[in-house]
Amino acid sequence: MTPPTPSNLGSNDARWLAAAARLALRARPASNPNPGVGCLIVKQGRVIARGWTQARGRPHAEAMALELAGDDARGADVFVTLEPCAHVSQRGPACADLLAAAAPARVIVGASDPDPRTAGKGIERLRAAGIEAILAQDPHSADSLSGYLTRARRDRPHVTLKLALSLDGCIAMADGSSQWITGEAARAHVHSRRALADAILVGGGTWRADTPRLDVRLPGLETRSPQRWVLTSQEAPGARTIAAPAEIARIPAQYLYVEGGARTAASFLEADLVDRLEIYRAPILIGGGIPALQDFGLGELAQAHGRWQPVERRNLGPDTFEAFARTR
Amino acid sequence: MTPPTPSNLGSNDARWLAAAARLALRARPASNPNPGVGCLIVKQGRVIARGWTQARGRPHAEAMALELAGDDARGADVFVTLEPCAHVSQRGPACADLLAAAAPARVIVGASDPDPRTAGKGIERLRAAGIEAILAQDPHSADSLSGYLTRARRDRPHVTLKLALSLDGCIAMADGSSQWITGEAARAHVHSRRALADAILVGGGTWRADTPRLDVRLPGLETRSPQRWVLTSQEAPGARTIAAPAEIARIPAQYLYVEGGARTAASFLEADLVDRLEIYRAPILIGGGIPALQDFGLGELAQAHGRWQPVERRNLGPDTFEAFARTR
Repeated sequence: MTPPTPSNLGSNDARWLAAAARLALRARPASNPNPGVGCLIVKQGRVIARGWTQARGRPHAEAMALELAGDDARGADVFVTLEPCAHVSQRGPACADLLAAAAPARVIVGASDPDPRTAGKGIERLRAAGIEAILAQDPHSADSLSGYLTRARRDRPHVTLKLALSLDGCIAMADGSSQWITGEAARAHVHSRRALADAILVGGGTWRADTPRLDVRLPGLETRSPQRWVLTSQEAPGARTIAAPAEIARIPAQYLYVEGGARTAASFLEADLVDRLEIYRAPILIGGGIPALQDFGLGELAQAHGRWQPVERRNLGPDTFEAFARTR
Repeated sequence: MTPPTPSNLGSNDARWLAAAARLALRARPASNPNPGVGCLIVKQGRVIARGWTQARGRPHAEAMALELAGDDARGADVFVTLEPCAHVSQRGPACADLLAAAAPARVIVGASDPDPRTAGKGIERLRAAGIEAILAQDPHSADSLSGYLTRARRDRPHVTLKLALSLDGCIAMADGSSQWITGEAARAHVHSRRALADAILVGGGTWRADTPRLDVRLPGLETRSPQRWVLTSQEAPGARTIAAPAEIARIPAQYLYVEGGARTAASFLEADLVDRLEIYRAPILIGGGIPALQDFGLGELAQAHGRWQPVERRNLGPDTFEAFARTR
């Protein structure tokens, strides 16, 4: 399941970039609407500074890391998941200028920035300053920026659909009872995933039937509970609403986490608006229960193949967690 | 998923016994109605002879290995998955006597034989001959003998239920089409599993709708196609029938492989007659398809837990294979 190494990087450089992409997770989701970027400054094989985008977008990852590195950045390697910004704003200087002044030997960039104020200009400015700037097509960096890139390219949030299932694919018994299919470790994992989302959404039926809290109940992360949205044409006190999946563009989020139920899941799939599928599966059989997904208009079986690429798998107590990315 | 090492064995001995258990797979299913046993003779850390139960039960594994080892068996270690038989038959000598004559230093046994003609007597006879005989409770040996032990203890075959599913737990689209959910590697694996069964069973609906061939279509194994059985109260030309799962005792098999459909699977689960669950899962979503299992009478969700222990997992091309053992 490991993505390939970018073709223009050595394996050590690829590993540093992957580490920067893991660091970028710390920026998520507080950096919204700015991209959550990670930056490592490496000298003689050791990390001398780290940075990631701070809440509401400033300081940027490079600015934070350069501040920490001080004069030691001279001659170092800078690994950054997104092309350094080339535009000066009232909120801070352009990272390309900061880097040019700090004079590292190399800047290794994981993904180019689709923002027209930067796109390509950040790299150009580094090269003009005599710095070796390498643009890699790094899958880890792109993955860590998926919310930002989806907003930029598709003008909507990146959508994760979460399902918690029995081996036979049920989300509940026929009478609706679903407490509990998965165990404590899986449920805690769900809360950690919610904490990475700007917004969370359930269907109107689930909202009215379960009045779910949809918050983050992990010690220290209670303040990270995302905005609550409901897919319904009715009112949903305590949440904001959209009437159809196509309206998600107006949810001010980079990362939208959809939790069901079966009709909502199907409506997002029918609109091809699911980018990532996260499946928690308990080693139990239910039999005749409520299936995970209602009909979403699959024409024939052959069309179902080749759409979902496994990207992660782990055990969570007795349960398993599997993530799949939509191939596009 | 690795079973624990038997408490009275060192790790090297446990590994040799596990290797004998893997060897025993070669006896399956041709040894029926005799147990499929594996035997390794080891001297100075090297295997000097191997044996496994031959077709229709003779020669026994120990007889085959001792014949190969000849005089070299003296002072060696013999690893055998089942207690050596203590009864002389018209078809051959007792293995306990053969072993006593060959005079190995130790005989390490993976499981005791519930056959009253042997139970404990095999071990006793070895010890009486001055051989160190160790009876281990080896999970690999027990697993490799599950068909024989289930017949002996429960007077019925060991039952494997196979399911080929989408991520959302469907065995077909709503219109019944199921070609194909899983890929070639998974389908070839199913044929290799069929080749390990004495008998194979489907429900009457599947039999009439699909007229499945239920044979082994792997080069060199075509002759290993199991007996075909159908769960139906009607006639099923080309197969034998039972009217209810409780009738499986009269299927002359150690290993019964049940392939569905959803009602048959549920009826075996309702009767608690599934010992092993084998799930092939394709990375596809169907939505509103035919669920894997009909209602099998699960009372409440808590009762679903703790029944299925994962014992094997592997990738088969794009699909996954997971096996679970019923905890009893």
